[in-house]
Amino acid sequence: MASTDKLPTRAENFADWYVELIQRAKLADYSDVKGCMVIRPNGYAIWENMQRALDGMFKETGHVNAYFPLLIPEEYLNREKEHVEGFKPQLAVVGYAGGAPLEPGQRYVIRPTSETIINRSFAKWIQSYRDLPLLINQWANVMRWEMRTRLFLRTTEFLWQEGHTCHETEGEAQDETLKMLEVYRRFAEDYMAMPVLCGQKTESEKFPGAVRTYSIEAMMQDKKALQAGTSHMLGQNFAKMFETQFQGRDGKQHFAWQTSWGVSTRLIGALILTHSDDAGLVVPPKLAAQHAVIIVIGKTPEERAKVKERAAALAADLNQNGVRTIVDDDESKMPGFKYYEYDLRGMCLRIELGPKDLEKNQCVLARRDQRQADGKAVKQFLQLAETVAKAKEALDDMQKSLLEKAKAFRAANTFEVNSYDEMKAKADAGFLLAHWNGDAKVEARIKEETGLTTRNRPFDLKQEPGKCVVTGEPSPGRIVFSKAY
Amino acid sequence: MASTDKLPTRAENFADWYVELIQRAKLADYSDVKGCMVIRPNGYAIWENMQRALDGMFKETGHVNAYFPLLIPEEYLNREKEHVEGFKPQLAVVGYAGGAPLEPGQRYVIRPTSETIINRSFAKWIQSYRDLPLLINQWANVMRWEMRTRLFLRTTEFLWQEGHTCHETEGEAQDETLKMLEVYRRFAEDYMAMPVLCGQKTESEKFPGAVRTYSIEAMMQDKKALQAGTSHMLGQNFAKMFETQFQGRDGKQHFAWQTSWGVSTRLIGALILTHSDDAGLVVPPKLAAQHAVIIVIGKTPEERAKVKERAAALAADLNQNGVRTIVDDDESKMPGFKYYEYDLRGMCLRIELGPKDLEKNQCVLARRDQRQADGKAVKQFLQLAETVAKAKEALDDMQKSLLEKAKAFRAANTFEVNSYDEMKAKADAGFLLAHWNGDAKVEARIKEETGLTTRNRPFDLKQEPGKCVVTGEPSPGRIVFSKAY
Repeated sequence: MASTDKLPTRAENFADWYVELIQRAKLADYSDVKGCMVIRPNGYAIWENMQRALDGMFKETGHVNAYFPLLIPEEYLNREKEHVEGFKPQLAVVGYAGGAPLEPGQRYVIRPTSETIINRSFAKWIQSYRDLPLLINQWANVMRWEMRTRLFLRTTEFLWQEGHTCHETEGEAQDETLKMLEVYRRFAEDYMAMPVLCGQKTESEKFPGAVRTYSIEAMMQDKKALQAGTSHMLGQNFAKMFETQFQGRDGKQHFAWQTSWGVSTRLIGALILTHSDDAGLVVPPKLAAQHAVIIVIGKTPEERAKVKERAAALAADLNQNGVRTIVDDDESKMPGFKYYEYDLRGMCLRIELGPKDLEKNQCVLARRDQRQADGKAVKQFLQLAETVAKAKEALDDMQKSLLEKAKAFRAANTFEVNSYDEMKAKADAGFLLAHWNGDAKVEARIKEETGLTTRNRPFDLKQEPGKCVVTGEPSPGRIVFSKAY
Repeated sequence: MASTDKLPTRAENFADWYVELIQRAKLADYSDVKGCMVIRPNGYAIWENMQRALDGMFKETGHVNAYFPLLIPEEYLNREKEHVEGFKPQLAVVGYAGGAPLEPGQRYVIRPTSETIINRSFAKWIQSYRDLPLLINQWANVMRWEMRTRLFLRTTEFLWQEGHTCHETEGEAQDETLKMLEVYRRFAEDYMAMPVLCGQKTESEKFPGAVRTYSIEAMMQDKKALQAGTSHMLGQNFAKMFETQFQGRDGKQHFAWQTSWGVSTRLIGALILTHSDDAGLVVPPKLAAQHAVIIVIGKTPEERAKVKERAAALAADLNQNGVRTIVDDDESKMPGFKYYEYDLRGMCLRIELGPKDLEKNQCVLARRDQRQADGKAVKQFLQLAETVAKAKEALDDMQKSLLEKAKAFRAANTFEVNSYDEMKAKADAGFLLAHWNGDAKVEARIKEETGLTTRNRPFDLKQEPGKCVVTGEPSPGRIVFSKAY
């Protein structure tokens, strides 16, 4: 059981609140391995629900899963110049195996991402345009030796999925890149209840080895941005290095056009930072391990026995109707302590049932995301006969309402800024829509002087020419700047 | 497309047949990484179905999933003497990370199994007997640097699940060990249609660090044994090394009693070696990616259009009824070539539909596991209206019939042997039930002289005293010897 000391509030210390919440809600724990965390069952259950939803969406769009080696010959990475420059500082290298040291030319790196080793297979598998498109996804662990780590958000090892596809034409690869970005948007909004901006990253922020990178960017409760997923149009860069070629309809050899795209356990961090509150975790029902707990109340054994029986019947009824419910009849803890614990761990609905309720054929329902001004739960009396219907309604409404709340928060913290001074003044205020001349040096200067980075150029942000806030030079349209995770 | 050269038959060369089948059916492929394979979509789909079934069974028995780091501090492994001796020769070591070499005391090994690093967490999570039992499972990749590897059966990296549990008493840990062995037996028989012997391994064959190891052992078509899963009673060995302690009901500190158990992608190799034939892969319907293909037949565009329409309707009907069906209307390949390909890849049912069938409101059904003496498919004419019902019936029957066939094969190749000469003569004949005095030296001598190893002492093999086939000394009862993968 977690300590009952109060969790720091978000206002007191947002960073501490985040880390404390994760540990007290038993979502994850530190390990002795530099920058690696242990994902505890409460956290892993959210990941399993994310995986199930995403995997279904990948399969609906024609992708199949496969598995490629964890280790990549060091030499593979060296083939794509930008790629190796991007990843080299973060590599973990196996230099000793099976009781003997490996020669420098035989060493392996633990995959930081798998474009190279997957291309080695693709080059063997693809002969003709008839073998295209090739639409593969992999669920795997990857490793990037990070200097500064934070639970879920940036860890040395993380779990993710990486899609890798090959196409006959540039246009098809571009379409795939955007199709998968749209899958991520749908997942973020429909499952995570997290609104995102879909758009293109700048040259300096793109994936090492990609032609173009697109991202979904979300706003966290501290108004910082979090890049929640990326989709890359790789062009023929990797295909050329690995000779991933096919005989085209014209009878000639062509390099495949490729994409890659991924989301990771970082999404769990994003989920926490988007919805959780000072009482603990808040999870949208579609991703929650459990939906409801029925708390058995009663003093005498006779009272409790009656309540338990009714609670079990109600739980069975709820479970049968898709409301994943558990019953808590532990007598060793007080109800108040239990409420605290279930709030902390993000139980969507709490149903209180006692002897007096039974007499009146009623129960009490409290919804995790509805709190009074003092932080206490809003309670609602329900007739037992209507509980299943009301619980389902509450879950549906909670899913929608979390998204609406996050959308309103983002809207309230998004601003057009028209001068560099205004930009500096609003550096911590949220998403800043500003004109920029497209020069990477100016982008770097803004980052250094204000901590603001370009997030992406959202598709739905109308592009109208203007003047760069720093140089006054022409800008093709506004782009989103923000501090970011 | 795979080559149409004939697959080697099992009788010609069993080992070549196995490896060729895997590559032609696109189940897996070699990689440039020593001993590591690529699991291709056709093979990975089987693993996904295995995972789904097993994961459901683990959850039904109260287990939850979690995730622990890939890397283990080298020092952890050294704590359990037998454990490190067992795994040291097979370790891959990370000696360089983030651009700098790691000091010897800071080096990491890639997990060969996770008892040590998981105990480090358990020691933090467990305080009281109220925290027990702790029932955790992990789906992960592990690495054991093997000298001789074979696709699926023995690879340097493999995918598996590893269960790790902590209990208050020795009895509870022993019960859990046997409960999970029984889960494996049920999975092997009900899903893989593969009969197994459940029993205890000898001292010399047990897991390094365990008190007792139990296994499920299956007979492959070449009459060799394959250890398909193991469940270990770990006693308090790891708990003592990592101080995994709890305050007991008596108010005193006790070391936790632990178990671990695992199955891996090796099961895909077992599946192939149990059921497949000279035409290719045979998969029990419960684990097959697809159940049925409808082959559209017809010469003129008009004929094909009509047949396609009916095929699509039939496929929709089949899919709605749980028969996972695809339609193949590719005109660029002849039906005969398609039959060959679908047989190779293990499609359970083939439905042929042509213009003449449509006139008669019929179709042709061929079941993958029913072959004539010449190896050709047995074909059955069905009324279209009864196709869904007949297809479901065929799948159910196929699932049962594969298990019955494998059981009969094992029974026909299991022998009691009563002398060492008889044992040597029957060394390649299958499972040999022999008396043995329990001495590890005698066990080692038998292995060296005959290639036979003890598999396990099956629970359902009645134990009656006898005389050791080698020494004539007393034996408590027969044990199973066999050549093994």
